[in-house]
Parts: sequence; structure tokens; C-alpha cells
Amino acid sequence: MFADIIENVRKTTPLVHNITNYVTVNDVANVLLACGGSPIMSDEPEDVEDITSICGGLNINIGTLNKNSIEGMFRAGKRANELGHVVLLDPVGAGASTLRTHTAIKLIDQIKFDVIRGNISEIKTLALGSGTTKGVDADVADAVTEETLDSAVRFVKAFAEKSGSIIAITGAIDLVADKDKCYVIRNGRPEMGKITGTGCQLSGMMTAFVVANKENPLEGAAAAVSTMGLAGEIAWDRMQEGDGNSTYRNRIIDAIYNMDGQTLEKGAKYEIR
Amino acid sequence: MFADIIENVRKTTPLVHNITNYVTVNDVANVLLACGGSPIMSDEPEDVEDITSICGGLNINIGTLNKNSIEGMFRAGKRANELGHVVLLDPVGAGASTLRTHTAIKLIDQIKFDVIRGNISEIKTLALGSGTTKGVDADVADAVTEETLDSAVRFVKAFAEKSGSIIAITGAIDLVADKDKCYVIRNGRPEMGKITGTGCQLSGMMTAFVVANKENPLEGAAAAVSTMGLAGEIAWDRMQEGDGNSTYRNRIIDAIYNMDGQTLEKGAKYEIR
Amino acid sequence: MFADIIENVRKTTPLVHNITNYVTVNDVANVLLACGGSPIMSDEPEDVEDITSICGGLNINIGTLNKNSIEGMFRAGKRANELGHVVLLDPVGAGASTLRTHTAIKLIDQIKFDVIRGNISEIKTLALGSGTTKGVDADVADAVTEETLDSAVRFVKAFAEKSGSIIAITGAIDLVADKDKCYVIRNGRPEMGKITGTGCQLSGMMTAFVVANKENPLEGAAAAVSTMGLAGEIAWDRMQEGDGNSTYRNRIIDAIYNMDGQTLEKGAKYEIR
Repeated sequence: MFADIIENVRKTTPLVHNITNYVTVNDVANVLLACGGSPIMSDEPEDVEDITSICGGLNINIGTLNKNSIEGMFRAGKRANELGHVVLLDPVGAGASTLRTHTAIKLIDQIKFDVIRGNISEIKTLALGSGTTKGVDADVADAVTEETLDSAVRFVKAFAEKSGSIIAITGAIDLVADKDKCYVIRNGRPEMGKITGTGCQLSGMMTAFVVANKENPLEGAAAAVSTMGLAGEIAWDRMQEGDGNSTYRNRIIDAIYNMDGQTLEKGAKYEIR
Repeated sequence: MFADIIENVRKTTPLVHNITNYVTVNDVANVLLACGGSPIMSDEPEDVEDITSICGGLNINIGTLNKNSIEGMFRAGKRANELGHVVLLDPVGAGASTLRTHTAIKLIDQIKFDVIRGNISEIKTLALGSGTTKGVDADVADAVTEETLDSAVRFVKAFAEKSGSIIAITGAIDLVADKDKCYVIRNGRPEMGKITGTGCQLSGMMTAFVVANKENPLEGAAAAVSTMGLAGEIAWDRMQEGDGNSTYRNRIIDAIYNMDGQTLEKGAKYEIR
Repeated sequence: MFADIIENVRKTTPLVHNITNYVTVNDVANVLLACGGSPIMSDEPEDVEDITSICGGLNINIGTLNKNSIEGMFRAGKRANELGHVVLLDPVGAGASTLRTHTAIKLIDQIKFDVIRGNISEIKTLALGSGTTKGVDADVADAVTEETLDSAVRFVKAFAEKSGSIIAITGAIDLVADKDKCYVIRNGRPEMGKITGTGCQLSGMMTAFVVANKENPLEGAAAAVSTMGLAGEIAWDRMQEGDGNSTYRNRIIDAIYNMDGQTLEKGAKYEIR
């Protein structure tokens, strides 16, 4: 099934509007091109509504938010909602600062997100903090491991139900869930954590995958996670002596560029709970 | 002749002030260094006049414009004009949003650009929209192909005459024209479109080429287009199995770094109309 | 001794808050990860105090300053001082514009910097301009060479004493000094100047090195300079025909990723004056 999902991206070239941080934005753009999508970046409030209107999806990442871009996030998000576009939130650093936590929660309150993708700590912050998700038991461990998996799956499904969004928690084991179904994905390598922005890249790519697979958004989001992780595995196999995290970054994007449906289908490691 | 042009860049190390988008800015800086120029970036209105004063050229790219940087563009552009510096406009996304279209047109109205470089759609937007270019027939196809070449050449010359700028339209076939003469350039590869920012990189490099060849600005601009395209060809020949768009990006910049006059002269594919 | 210093970074994973320019920020983040640190970026005034509070060090780089981020620099710097965190200043372009010069001097006046790192021209601007450093003889040559070394060492020690900061001047020969002791470092290659942002990368890495070696800040700063230069030498040895500055950039970061204490100890070239 993941084979069709990535092929749909390559066939339809989904245009994704990104309001994202300036740290990893270049890699986000190149990953979107690598997977078959097309990126546009714009964060100026007076520009974002026009730009998002010509796209199919919107990727909001608060990694280097500022007052001006925050206004852009709300205006773009509302317009994208009106147009029925796919909207994704990457709440980078929620829990690490009041501004980030409040902004992420306010975004969730005012904008309907198809997908929210973050690490366990960011997602727990949102689950605890948001009015709309009051009552979700976020008393779950701070890392998703084989030992904590059962409770993490319960948590992610519960938050998906309360929020009405697909929730993706990425880490050593990745979870992608709606209220009924959770993909538990075991692709990837720990060395990916030594590259800045693999999470941001995934959020951009995931938006394109969901846009191109609107009838199967959960599978679209899960396939994006598997694609990123598998690219990390393929890229690692190509590493040579003396190579490090900078070359690894390039090779991961290269591996996404070369990923076809069959490779993904064969390499994806997941179970459904 | 292109040999002398690139050698002039390497001999004189033109300093280029860039007000450019945060997506591709790192690549723009590295391409400028690769071709023999030197980059400075600054977009704060209170900083740009001083910075542009110590440079030889100014590259304005509206790819991620915001209210603050727009003010910086006007202030830098006016100062650069007063000083007789080379000024280039890359109207990224003109036609895609009202803010981008209006900003690009207002820039053309208030600032004298030596060169305007964009894709056919952006350039058509400017030709139609600008008061100074009223009357230019922009009823030309949306892609420059062998079939549409004649009318595209007429259009680009007409817009060059009306605007008083050298106009560069890049795509599968590239056109670089003043009112009398049009370089039709056939370097490059379609895979360059899978890398973010090759256009932005070209605009930065083109500014350096024109600064270093002020008596031959048309040839300077055309040589920059040829250099970029030829670098794309050379880089493609170095691609190995498993490589993708990220490695291709690095190799294109590497190829510019290694480009000498003789290689450019031999590899440039163009005719003059 | 440098061996222990880099091993301390890898053992303690210092978290560094960076307010840095959008040109080279991605490379700064990847270098911080490569050396064993961890990067966070934030420049919004309402965000920076929270973010800097959870970090061990703060790296302020004025390369693409704007009114908003300048306010962020002051707020973050003051909070970091209150918390006793390591704070570093990279005064990019001081001397090239009034805004940059004034901002850098005002930062030095209001914030206690553990380290100031720049090129000779930037450091001379600060030494001449700052009230706190009045009287320092900045009548020193514009490049540190074997011929000008004696006077440069006297200058850097004098400025270190007046400012109360460790001063790092990088160039063909690098100087890292407090009032009593100056490391004269001869690692590196001239080709590193053809890559954008090796100085910014060094400032980020140096912050991590000093955080992880708080009892030996001078040695921490000197070891960071040696690490960067040695990585440039190792990376150069791995260059192949056709490679250029983009690949060189990747290989330098890779070399930092692979640098161990023994390699650094053996490759570091310095004397103490």
C-alpha cells in the first residue's frame, strides 16, 4: 500500500506552502523536491493567504517563530482551512518556552490540523495544555520504547480522538495514529539525530504525502515516516570512511530522491495496533 | 569572449550585496564564492545603505519578502543607483501573490535595474503590470520552446527596450537580451529543476558577472547563464548510482568553483538573435 | 590537553542557544551536532529568555541583524549573564556599517561576554570604539602574519584585559588570548575562505567547547579553533578531482564529526606566547 502512496506523490506533484524555520528550510525544500512535491515558502502575513491559495497543503513549523511569522501562521491556516487544504503542524519546542507552547496551543484551538507531528515531549505538552484536549491522560513516559509502547499507543490514539487530527510522534519508534488505528514504525537509524532538521524535513514531506493521498491521510502520514526512516537506512549503507553527519544529510535526501514504490514497500517496517 | 568574462570575475572578486530569501541564501553565498565573487547579506533597512555602499553590486530577490525587508530593498536599491552600482532584480513569485507582484512592479518603477532575471511567468507579470512597460505585448507562450522561440525573442527584446534593463528569462531554453540583441542559450539539464534555488544562485552569480564586466553587461549576464547551465551538465556527468538532488546541488557549486575560461568557452552553447 | 577538552564536549552534550544569521545557520547547527553539542535557535525577543534559560551557552552573531533580533540579543544576553551561562559574541561586519558597529559596542557595554571572536578588522573596530576599552592601542596591521605577530599578540592581550573577555582573532594565523596568555594557532587552510560561514560555525562550536570546559575557558576556545582548522586540513586531504567548495564544506563538518581527542592532540599546531 505504501508503494501506491509514494507513487501518488510523484504523479501529482503536490504544491506545499511552508511557514517554517530558517535553520532547516533549505533541506525542507530539497526533500519536498526529492519526494516528488514542490515547495513554496512565505511567512509575511500580507503574502501568505495568496500563496496558500495556490497550494494543496500547508506545513506550519514554529521552529524560529517571531511575531510577524506567527501572524502569518494564523492567516495562512485559516485560509487553508476555508479552502479545504491539508494543514500540518510541527510544534517545534512546545514545552521549551511559553511563547512556543502558547502559540502551538492557540494554533490548535483556531485551526483544524489534519496532522500534528512532533516528538513525544512536544506532543505531551499539547495534549496537556490544550482546552480541546482536556482530559487526555498524558501521563506517559518521555520516550517511546518497547517497554512503554502500550501506554504510548493508548495516549496517541486518545489525543488523536480529542484533537480530531492524525498524531505522529517520532523517535526511536515512531507512532502515527488516528483514534482507531496506530502505525508503529521501526524504520530509521539513531545517527539521524546527529543531523539538524530531519524532523522538519519529515513534516514537509508528510504534508505532500497527505495532499497526494487525501482519501487515506493516515496511511499517507505513516508512509512519509517510513520513507524518511528507510532513506536514513539506505543512506547509512552508502557511508564511507571519513563521512559524517553533513554527508549523511545529503545522502538521506538523495535516497528519498531515488525511492520508488517497490523499495519503500519492501523496506517499510511497521505493525498496526 | 565568455572566457574573458569569467576570468574578469576571478581577477576582481566583486563584492555583492544580497537581499535574498532565507531558503536558498546559503547556496547563493557559496555560489558567489565559487565563481570568484564575495557575498554580503543584509536586509535590515537601517543597515542596507551602509552595506551596499561598500559593494559593487546589489542582488534583490523577493523570494521570502516581508515588510521589513521590502523597505530594505527600496533603500538599498536607491543608494546603489546613486552610487552607480550594478543592481539586479529576481522577482520570485511575481504573479503568484498580490504583494509579490506589487512589490516587484514598484521596485521597477522606483529603481533602475541593470538586469531583471526570472522565469517566463514572472517576467510576463512584470511586462504586463508595470506602467513603464505598458504596451509590451506579453501575449507569448508560458514556456520558451523551439516552437515559441521567435515570439519569445521578440517579447524579451521589447520588454528590455521598455524597461531599460537587460532581461534574462531562464527555463529549458534561456534568453538574455537587451533591446537589440538576444542570447539564446541551450546549456543546462532538466534535473536542475529538482534542486531548490538554482535560479536564486544564478541571480547572485549574474550580479557578480555584470559587476566585473561593466562595459559588457549583456555578455556578462549571458555568460553567467551559460556558466550555471554548463556546471549543471558537468555536475551531472559526475553523478554516481544512488546520488540524488542533494549531491547534485553540491556538485553544481563544485563545478562552478572549478570552471575556468577555457572550459566555459568550449562548453557554452548559444546563438545570438 | 586539547584531547580532554573535546572529549568533555562529547561527554556532556552542551546545549547552545544561537541567535545567528540566516545565511549559515544550518551549518552552525550541523557543526554543533558534529562536535558533540546540541543547538537551539531563537531570536524573537519574547522567546529568547525562556530558550536561553534551558541552555548552557549563548552564541550571539550579528551577521544578519534586524531590529527585532537585536532586541532578542540584548534580552537573551542579559538573562544568560544572570544565570552565569557562557556567552560569546561574533561581531560579523563590525566596522562595515554603523548599525553593526554600534550594536556590537552596545552589546559589549551591556553584556559580559566570556569570548569575543572575529577577524582582525572586526576586533580592531571593537577595540577602538568601545568606551570600556578606551586606550587600547589598535594601531596594529590588518592581517596577522609572521611579520606582524608580535604586535598582534600585544594587541589581543591588551584588548582581552580591557574587555575582560577571551579574544579570538581568526585568520591565516589564529590568536586566542586572555590578558596573560595567547595561543598562536597555525591549523587550517586558505581554501576555507571560499566557504561561507566557517567563522560562524567556529563561533557556535567554540561556545559548546567553553561550556563543556568552564574551568579552562581559554583552552576551550583555543581547542575549538584548532579543531576547526584541523578539520579543514583533514577534509582537504579527502578532496577528489572535480570537488569544490560545496563538497569541502560537507567534508569539514564530517571531519569534525569524526574528530577524536587523539587526532586533535596530534594535529593541533600551536604555541603559547
